Amino acid sequence: MPTYRLTVAYDGSAFVGWQQQAHGASVQEALQHALRMLLGHEVFCRAAGRTDAGVHAMGQVVSFVSPRTMPPTAFQHGMRHYLPSSIAVLAASIAADDFDARFSASGKLYRYQIWNAPVRSPLQQATHWHVRFPLDRQAMQEAAQHLVGRHDFASFRAANCERKTTVRTLHRVELRVPVAEEPALHIEVEGTAFLKYMVRNLVGTLVEVGKRRMKPARMAEVLASCDRTQAGPTAPPHGLILWRVDFGPRVGY
Amino acid sequence: MPTYRLTVAYDGSAFVGWQQQAHGASVQEALQHALRMLLGHEVFCRAAGRTDAGVHAMGQVVSFVSPRTMPPTAFQHGMRHYLPSSIAVLAASIAADDFDARFSASGKLYRYQIWNAPVRSPLQQATHWHVRFPLDRQAMQEAAQHLVGRHDFASFRAANCERKTTVRTLHRVELRVPVAEEPALHIEVEGTAFLKYMVRNLVGTLVEVGKRRMKPARMAEVLASCDRTQAGPTAPPHGLILWRVDFGPRVGY
Repeated sequence: MPTYRLTVAYDGSAFVGWQQQAHGASVQEALQHALRMLLGHEVFCRAAGRTDAGVHAMGQVVSFVSPRTMPPTAFQHGMRHYLPSSIAVLAASIAADDFDARFSASGKLYRYQIWNAPVRSPLQQATHWHVRFPLDRQAMQEAAQHLVGRHDFASFRAANCERKTTVRTLHRVELRVPVAEEPALHIEVEGTAFLKYMVRNLVGTLVEVGKRRMKPARMAEVLASCDRTQAGPTAPPHGLILWRVDFGPRVGY
Repeated sequence: MPTYRLTVAYDGSAFVGWQQQAHGASVQEALQHALRMLLGHEVFCRAAGRTDAGVHAMGQVVSFVSPRTMPPTAFQHGMRHYLPSSIAVLAASIAADDFDARFSASGKLYRYQIWNAPVRSPLQQATHWHVRFPLDRQAMQEAAQHLVGRHDFASFRAANCERKTTVRTLHRVELRVPVAEEPALHIEVEGTAFLKYMVRNLVGTLVEVGKRRMKPARMAEVLASCDRTQAGPTAPPHGLILWRVDFGPRVGY
């Protein structure tokens, strides 16, 4: 049975998250529904990142198996008719038999978008966290450097996170101003794997530094404390975008 | 009676445009409603750019008079409660008595946003025109240069445009890629005044050049023809944003 791989983008606003829930529409269900309509059988989709309610994706990767052999482009074109406009299949391919979007992923890039302006902006409100207070970007970038590397990120996990080990590696935590003199601020976080709410908790803490409520060097102490109460609040989901998923050289791109 | 000036941003998706219509919600009505609730009397608002249905604004300027003297910040904070989340008042000030947003404006900057990728993007679809065909940006920029300056723009006006003179001056028509290696393409058009659908018709024609259906030099001929049928199709409204309005040195910024 061939294993298929899809690259998927979605506006997470209307979804309860990737994973199927008792109530509300999930991205997983919407994709599984479209695949069922196209293939004529039940499909179980696995995602590289199980994004939370309200979190968006520009490059989520999904895998599934089907007894039917179809040209990958058929998924891209055929699923369109069964998906809401908030979900799009960007690419499709046949993957190696042992490919599993969740377990084969070797790294992920998240982008967190902040709109740093005195007044909320209607055109940005679905995809940016509106922070009124002027942020000290240099202090934030300085604090961010403490996060890069292999660390125990227990201070930044969700209260209900069930992972046994909380050691993770971040390759890059970078602040970017995409258009000079505009209020958009992007925080790109790249790493091997992430704990539940980890990016949103990192961003919430970086914003505390940006507001000068916390010194940049304090970030190292928060990390070392392994105590969630030492870190800042959780940034809202609607600023977060799963930007890209990387796979090891075995699977390729 | 003091004249007030507001800088307003809106997501035009849900509106029939700036101007009040027989059916559907207009931005003008929404603002006038909020002002009526705040001031306790009827208000007539005038806008620098009477944006069409579906067109957005990041820096629309609106003026109105009121017998009531209020600190300008009261508008910014007070109107919030009466406006839908798709409209925000970014700034408010007291203007010169003869200030009229429409007639005092000395220039405007429009930004047209294109998402140039094979597949539509859910997070960009409300604010970008999705163009599948890969665009030749260099050819577009070359064609755009023919538009800069003082010209008769009759070829680019709407069929029902009622202006007597169609001579306008464009200061700048520039293509920008805000984030390298991402599919967003911005076309910034700056000028003194614009005809109905002018920016959207210019963009539609530039996209024809980008698709190599028209040579860049042909743009000069289209302009010289003063014939709407020589130009390209009208680009859809949802990619267009009234970005900024400029006022002469008399009013200042």
